[in-house]
Amino acid sequence: MSMRISDLSASSGVSLPTLKFYLREGLLQPGESTGRNQAAYDERHLRRLRLVRALTEVGNLSLKEVKAVLDAADDPTLPIHELLGVAQYALEPPSPSAIEASAAATVDAAIEMLGWRVSDDAPARRSIAHAVEVLRSLGWSVDPADLVRYAKAVDRLAESEVAISDGAIDRERLVERMVVGSVVFEAILTAFRRLAQEHHSAARRRSVAER
Amino acid sequence: MSMRISDLSASSGVSLPTLKFYLREGLLQPGESTGRNQAAYDERHLRRLRLVRALTEVGNLSLKEVKAVLDAADDPTLPIHELLGVAQYALEPPSPSAIEASAAATVDAAIEMLGWRVSDDAPARRSIAHAVEVLRSLGWSVDPADLVRYAKAVDRLAESEVAISDGAIDRERLVERMVVGSVVFEAILTAFRRLAQEHHSAARRRSVAER
Repeated sequence: MSMRISDLSASSGVSLPTLKFYLREGLLQPGESTGRNQAAYDERHLRRLRLVRALTEVGNLSLKEVKAVLDAADDPTLPIHELLGVAQYALEPPSPSAIEASAAATVDAAIEMLGWRVSDDAPARRSIAHAVEVLRSLGWSVDPADLVRYAKAVDRLAESEVAISDGAIDRERLVERMVVGSVVFEAILTAFRRLAQEHHSAARRRSVAER
Repeated sequence: MSMRISDLSASSGVSLPTLKFYLREGLLQPGESTGRNQAAYDERHLRRLRLVRALTEVGNLSLKEVKAVLDAADDPTLPIHELLGVAQYALEPPSPSAIEASAAATVDAAIEMLGWRVSDDAPARRSIAHAVEVLRSLGWSVDPADLVRYAKAVDRLAESEVAISDGAIDRERLVERMVVGSVVFEAILTAFRRLAQEHHSAARRRSVAER
């Protein structure tokens, strides 16, 4: 299948100006040149546009964040086993540079209790430490065991999630799975948490009313 | 403790222009008037500023979203048991108005399998359906059982989370717990998922290398 840019726009539902913007910003791979100011696009471009949509619409990523992830994905010198890490690091929301030592120590203790081996400079560590810091500033007490409960909720899930990369054949597909899996399933997970809270909150009220 | 606005700024670390902006936008309750162009602020204002910080820095919410949540919190006519719902609905990222019927049906089937009682118009339902739609557009197969795995990961956690509201005494504290719990612990949960993926991904590589 070969398409001109106008066909790509019609097939993807992405407007022509947006396509040109994506090309300029490197979010979309260039088409194959077929003449002066003409290029041919194919199924790969269509997939890439769906990927950008998944990341922006469902993952709520900015185009800058999408770019960082896709740049990692497109870098052929990056070993496959590092892709997940790079994509994750690009996806991590920024945390302030200074984190209180006591908050960082609480996170370290939780990871120690879990027996997980994760990099000392994993940005997710800092995200959790920052959250702990903010909770404490609001007067909550947060100890490592509290954090471990959250970690355990996603432990098995993450184990099965990383296994999906086993079946993937080509690099492009693998990257797509990792990135989409990371971002879109995060949205699914957090939305289910909200539904579960709604369900359990209503269930508690019913049981109180019945007492 | 009573403070002038300059003291509030010094205690909270929030600049004077930002404080004035928050007051104008209704993110911060007005202080008690103590004279012409003078008002007194107290511990409640300081807590509110920490809450705004928690929602923006850790929860990554826009000020518009923070406002929606705080408006619900500040509305004295809203029954306490509806607060969680209103806060959640305000926090839900927007999804497109048109969702494919087949994606919505997959979510309905998952909720049926879980036996959860949640409102038909819970925005989290739409978020999940939209995610399913996007995954399918990328060629993933997603059935209700896949979704149930994600739901089950957070089921117990959510049950214990809604129980925290039992001990709260005053409305203001309760709202704060719900909102902070919802937003900050979501950040903790998703960050742990990324750490768990890193851990399990590395563990798989080690076990492959040892074969």
